[in-house]
Amino acid sequence: MSTNQPAHPRNLEAALAHIQYLLDKQDLVQEVVHKTEMPRHDLVENLVTRQQLEELRRQINVLHPADIAYVLESLPLERRRRIWELVDSTHDGAVLLEVSDAVRRTLIADMDRAELVDAAEQLESDEIADLVPDLPKDVVPELMGKLDLEDRAQVQSALSFPEGSVGALMDFEFVAVREDVNLDVVLRYLRRLGELPAGSNLLMVTDREGLFRGILPVEALLIHEGEVAVVDVMIRDPVVFHTNDAAEDAAQAFERYDLIVAPVVTVHNKLVGCLKVDAVLDLIQAESQKDLLAQAGLSEDVDLFAPVWRAARSRWFWLALNLVTAFIASRVIGQFEDSIQKIVALAALMPIVASVGGNTGNQTLALMIRGFALRQINPGNFGYLVRKEVVVALLNGLLWGGVMGGITWLLYGQLPLAGIMLAAMVLNLMLAALAGLFIPMALKLVRQDPALGSSILLTGLTDSMGFLIFLGLATLFLAA
Amino acid sequence: MSTNQPAHPRNLEAALAHIQYLLDKQDLVQEVVHKTEMPRHDLVENLVTRQQLEELRRQINVLHPADIAYVLESLPLERRRRIWELVDSTHDGAVLLEVSDAVRRTLIADMDRAELVDAAEQLESDEIADLVPDLPKDVVPELMGKLDLEDRAQVQSALSFPEGSVGALMDFEFVAVREDVNLDVVLRYLRRLGELPAGSNLLMVTDREGLFRGILPVEALLIHEGEVAVVDVMIRDPVVFHTNDAAEDAAQAFERYDLIVAPVVTVHNKLVGCLKVDAVLDLIQAESQKDLLAQAGLSEDVDLFAPVWRAARSRWFWLALNLVTAFIASRVIGQFEDSIQKIVALAALMPIVASVGGNTGNQTLALMIRGFALRQINPGNFGYLVRKEVVVALLNGLLWGGVMGGITWLLYGQLPLAGIMLAAMVLNLMLAALAGLFIPMALKLVRQDPALGSSILLTGLTDSMGFLIFLGLATLFLAA
Repeated sequence: MSTNQPAHPRNLEAALAHIQYLLDKQDLVQEVVHKTEMPRHDLVENLVTRQQLEELRRQINVLHPADIAYVLESLPLERRRRIWELVDSTHDGAVLLEVSDAVRRTLIADMDRAELVDAAEQLESDEIADLVPDLPKDVVPELMGKLDLEDRAQVQSALSFPEGSVGALMDFEFVAVREDVNLDVVLRYLRRLGELPAGSNLLMVTDREGLFRGILPVEALLIHEGEVAVVDVMIRDPVVFHTNDAAEDAAQAFERYDLIVAPVVTVHNKLVGCLKVDAVLDLIQAESQKDLLAQAGLSEDVDLFAPVWRAARSRWFWLALNLVTAFIASRVIGQFEDSIQKIVALAALMPIVASVGGNTGNQTLALMIRGFALRQINPGNFGYLVRKEVVVALLNGLLWGGVMGGITWLLYGQLPLAGIMLAAMVLNLMLAALAGLFIPMALKLVRQDPALGSSILLTGLTDSMGFLIFLGLATLFLAA
Repeated sequence: MSTNQPAHPRNLEAALAHIQYLLDKQDLVQEVVHKTEMPRHDLVENLVTRQQLEELRRQINVLHPADIAYVLESLPLERRRRIWELVDSTHDGAVLLEVSDAVRRTLIADMDRAELVDAAEQLESDEIADLVPDLPKDVVPELMGKLDLEDRAQVQSALSFPEGSVGALMDFEFVAVREDVNLDVVLRYLRRLGELPAGSNLLMVTDREGLFRGILPVEALLIHEGEVAVVDVMIRDPVVFHTNDAAEDAAQAFERYDLIVAPVVTVHNKLVGCLKVDAVLDLIQAESQKDLLAQAGLSEDVDLFAPVWRAARSRWFWLALNLVTAFIASRVIGQFEDSIQKIVALAALMPIVASVGGNTGNQTLALMIRGFALRQINPGNFGYLVRKEVVVALLNGLLWGGVMGGITWLLYGQLPLAGIMLAAMVLNLMLAALAGLFIPMALKLVRQDPALGSSILLTGLTDSMGFLIFLGLATLFLAA
């Protein structure tokens, strides 16, 4: 494990900028040396390049592994590879753990089997389990063979929990004491251990069979006399999680009750690990980005600096679906070609109805996605929400549809056309509100992420229906 | 302070459902008693109502204040008021602190001055400072008058830091020891204090002048002998924040280095407080929701169950802006009315170009907003990103524009029209990518949230330009 100091955020962005500057300089030298066809340019190039590489190696390896991960995440693929080669192998495991899944795969692709096994071996069992799904298949047996019996069992156990469960997120490192001893015994035990697992502010209390009995905050050891028994100062009913609890629920509990460490037990109340706030922080960060990206039809597992071809492909599914919905909207318009030919103003006005519908629907959608994330929406209040959002849409439709109707009247001088504009805006805004409410609800009911592609689905609907409502009304009342 | 136990997440949603059920029952009884015009219905009503109120009061007050806050957040305004009246006044302060700003204002509106002062008095200085901006102006002097000198100074100091700074987020409660004493002295001091501030896993070390010297992890007290001096086991260079550091930067550091508590100093290195992971967790949660809502032009400070009129008004600004952009798009089409009259298929096809542009632009936008949140975007790599996203747009434009061109050909049998479809898709996708890159960048440069209304601005641009490109090309090559 590295002992490099964390950088202050102010300095970290400067460190990244400096590394980018060194990479730029390297590129420049390569270019100049080759262009000028300097005599003996190989020699010069070698010398300069070696100096530059050493400078880069020094700059990257003074950083904390989490900061190295940040630098790698912020570099385009080719530069990321060049820097990754320079990272000291003692950091490899910790860096792989800190980067996002997408970036991790690009780094692993550049490592051979021995490097991967060495890197993984530096880690703790729960960390190895996080890494295993991304490792090439042939590396895993070799790695497992090198672990001792206990670690191997822990890795296998962590891998057996489904993603998104507390079991998959928890940590196996904790200090457990028995409830019938006194605090002096606990203190002697801790001195023999020499350290507490990182980020622990409490000890676990178990009985002889390893069943969970309570927690002993470290501060109890400081403020009570040594003769006091553990059982008399332990907390018997802290927040406890089961291995099969949803990790997101646990994260909410951490936030709500300001937890730092919480015990994790099996259904039989056997203590198997603990959940720590640092894992929860990472989870919340990842989840929050997920909603933002999912709404636009992107996976959270996307690399900002992915190679062009991979980036293009990652957008195909939702792009194709978008084309289908746009095509449907186009066919809707196609049905009204006669009316448009009679009143060509319809073609100019119809996108207003569609656009305002799409944007107000997206507002309702964003509120719903946040409401789901905060567990605020349930069958008992959804009906109220529907009524509220529909009335809001009605009010705003009347108000802004009225404004738009007025402008239509001024522009085209046709009062009936203005009336149809108003009516279409009101109807499409109400429809958009319903779409914003029911699309995430429907996704939730079929056990999908309520944000998944919701914005694309919604605008597909508000476009088609916006055109249908506006052109339909116009055909009925004006062009018939 | 309440000593109510936190509920397990599984049980919390059930508690909310049960409270909603009791409220439904209450509504039902009211209705039935009134409708049937039962003789002596006042008496019956009073009896039943009183029983029901007692049941509700019991159910809400067994909850942890953070859970009461959750229930209040999840109820429509009228029901929220009914429950808030039943909440025991000893919970008031803690509950006000836990709810979101928007909900807090609805609760404060229902309290009189004495209740507010009582509630605030239960809190610590940094918590009071969080509350003050939402309190009615006449309550603040009365509240300040009731605080002791030290607390009042702390509240004033916390209020003096700008929102979004570490100073505004930090906590004043910490235990400081001097570096020249030994651990036995520290232990005796802690026993006299009787407890550590919640969530502290370390002590601060200062010199005689209160200048920061280092931190002493609590575990050092457990594993070292009592004669060891603080100076020999303290950590001299932990991550330290300044009061004027950006809170978001500090949050990133907490996540990156797995911090739990970090010292906060002034520019003169005087120790003034500490930043704790629970405050950071709340901040990250709030920030993440902010981006999701801001993109659609909503403030993070919005109450899912706001009254209809307030909800409607909160959407006016962006709705109006949306109408302006939609109007511009409409005028663009208006310029091409002749072409549309000649080839009415244009009216049906043009929204496809606009819709696909909007959605792919939103994908680039979501990536940029996440990139900014993770501090991954800087002048050194923005150029690479621009090239990458434009090439991705070109590839996807050629591929899916080709598909759409083919469909156009099949549908209308006009090869030139198909070619114009392809060309317009390629150009609008590239324009959408540029808009997705430069709109958040421009917002950032004018020191706005890069997500603010970005989606509305982007679709405004991709709509207008999509129509202009498609109809412009069609007019040049087909309808001229």
